[in-house]
Amino acid sequence: MLNQVDLITIAVDAMGGDYGVESAIPGVALLNKKNPEIHFMIFGDENHIYPLLNRYKNLKKVSQVVHTDKMVSSDEKPSVALRASKGTSMRMAIEAVKNGDACAIVSSGNTGALMAMAKIILKTVSGIHRPAIASVFPTLKNDTIMLDLGANVLVDAENLVQFAVLGAVFAKAHNDIAVPSVGLLNVGSEETKGPEHVRGAASILSNVDFPGRYYGFVEGDDIMKGVVDVVVSDGYAGNIALKAAEGVSNFTQYYFKKAFRSDPFAVLGGLLAFFAFRRCNKRLDPRAYNGGVFLGLNGLCIKSHGGSDAFAFSNALRLAVELTKHGYVNQIADDISHLMNQESFL
Amino acid sequence: MLNQVDLITIAVDAMGGDYGVESAIPGVALLNKKNPEIHFMIFGDENHIYPLLNRYKNLKKVSQVVHTDKMVSSDEKPSVALRASKGTSMRMAIEAVKNGDACAIVSSGNTGALMAMAKIILKTVSGIHRPAIASVFPTLKNDTIMLDLGANVLVDAENLVQFAVLGAVFAKAHNDIAVPSVGLLNVGSEETKGPEHVRGAASILSNVDFPGRYYGFVEGDDIMKGVVDVVVSDGYAGNIALKAAEGVSNFTQYYFKKAFRSDPFAVLGGLLAFFAFRRCNKRLDPRAYNGGVFLGLNGLCIKSHGGSDAFAFSNALRLAVELTKHGYVNQIADDISHLMNQESFL
Repeated sequence: MLNQVDLITIAVDAMGGDYGVESAIPGVALLNKKNPEIHFMIFGDENHIYPLLNRYKNLKKVSQVVHTDKMVSSDEKPSVALRASKGTSMRMAIEAVKNGDACAIVSSGNTGALMAMAKIILKTVSGIHRPAIASVFPTLKNDTIMLDLGANVLVDAENLVQFAVLGAVFAKAHNDIAVPSVGLLNVGSEETKGPEHVRGAASILSNVDFPGRYYGFVEGDDIMKGVVDVVVSDGYAGNIALKAAEGVSNFTQYYFKKAFRSDPFAVLGGLLAFFAFRRCNKRLDPRAYNGGVFLGLNGLCIKSHGGSDAFAFSNALRLAVELTKHGYVNQIADDISHLMNQESFL
Repeated sequence: MLNQVDLITIAVDAMGGDYGVESAIPGVALLNKKNPEIHFMIFGDENHIYPLLNRYKNLKKVSQVVHTDKMVSSDEKPSVALRASKGTSMRMAIEAVKNGDACAIVSSGNTGALMAMAKIILKTVSGIHRPAIASVFPTLKNDTIMLDLGANVLVDAENLVQFAVLGAVFAKAHNDIAVPSVGLLNVGSEETKGPEHVRGAASILSNVDFPGRYYGFVEGDDIMKGVVDVVVSDGYAGNIALKAAEGVSNFTQYYFKKAFRSDPFAVLGGLLAFFAFRRCNKRLDPRAYNGGVFLGLNGLCIKSHGGSDAFAFSNALRLAVELTKHGYVNQIADDISHLMNQESFL
């Protein structure tokens, strides 16, 4: 069910990532084409923003540019960036969410700095101990939500249970399903397998009422099989799994491309198969799944990949709109409070 | 440097895996073609073994068949399998290593049962606290050895340092390099990142003399980039990374195959590119990298994939021969004792 929101405004840090405004403004414009009802606050250097924004008349009508020439550098340590963050486009965009001027903030900038600032400025939803990073992945079945992808190396069973709630509500909004299935990432499917915090979370999830259906343990290869709608993990295993998966994907593509350039028959074959490949690539295109969502904060914060182009950036914006339309943050506050009041959780 | 070994004998459990003798005997025959000097003890039902073995005259000359009609079932719980293991082909093959009749044992059977039996019968090398499972992976550069892939969920810093030794000596034998680089799998490259046991191992490895060169932390995507010769991890993150990688590989192949069947141009394109693909597939063929090696025991034990065909099985045998020729077990005993005697380790 949708929360009826009269006006959705997204705060955009236009200065982050490898391409800054060059990908951010055309990215916002792409979203504007599909969702003309969404408003934007665009933070950054107006001297760079306006020349691009002027190309999109419809977008300009729903956008407010907030000028600053200060920005967070992509290679700054989070602690250093945080101290010098006042007046940067990233911080001002987060503050717009804090002040209620925007519902969500999207940035392609420095991940560590964005997480540090979002945590300090937005703070966690009452009852949530730690925010988590979630992302959507294509699978052989439906899309799967996976979290935590690296915000929390050390977690306890209770944290994992909260991640299960964060992920289940995300899956409801994204996959439009009433009761998403939730699996705990582990090294085997038997009850006795795995580290204590994972077994502890399994025992709680089997007994509480939460917005998903507890499936059991899932293994690394179950993620892309689409065995469950939500895969929950600590940030240590989750981050390593995510990056190992990226590595294999790059490795495979390298060898396939090499094969297609290796002899004249292969080159011709590749040309003939071009359209079929393009179709298949849509499903394999990481840009379509761009956006690490920081969940559990009072306001949505979405990290777009540093190398995002306009298409990738627009997909991170789409996640922000999707979750805002479903009233994600309020829903989480309700569901966590419901969880914490259950005897079996205490 | 090779240890001169007059006679290398490999113990083969011929009854394991989906195909039993059907893949084991032709697999042994494949190795025999390349390494006619290797001897074999083949454990299993002679009524099934001889009809196949009789086809390979040269192999028969260097093989001794040890009959038993008892075998470990593939879906038995390790504890149950262990109790009923007496006289099974798997146990007898491991005992042949224990008794000094063979240098290594290879089986496609029940992984948990094989690990349980190997640990109890062969025991760990003096000074090694826990055995680990290692495997060889193709990368964009050279092959990389990765361990632990799931034998130990919980480890401490000292265990990881021992895994570094186990992996470095493996890489020396397999990649034929004098001083392999060793990385610790983690969620970031900064010193302050990651769980305590990983940071603890980093601090020890930076200060001890061991058979490799400590590189630092590596992330999940560095595995397939071939950043280091050896990737060391606990069995929790290692197993999840391995299986997540398998999942992506299956997912990608599914969509590529689908693309090539989707329209007549693509089918023709696929035919034209066939030979190029076959070349590229050699590098992507998991059968070429078959074999999970149990390291740290008094004797080598190699788990061949349950779905191994003859080619895959022969590659697991090749690993056994490779490590045996390099005197792996004795080398580990020396290197671990050297490690334990260093002040910086204590």
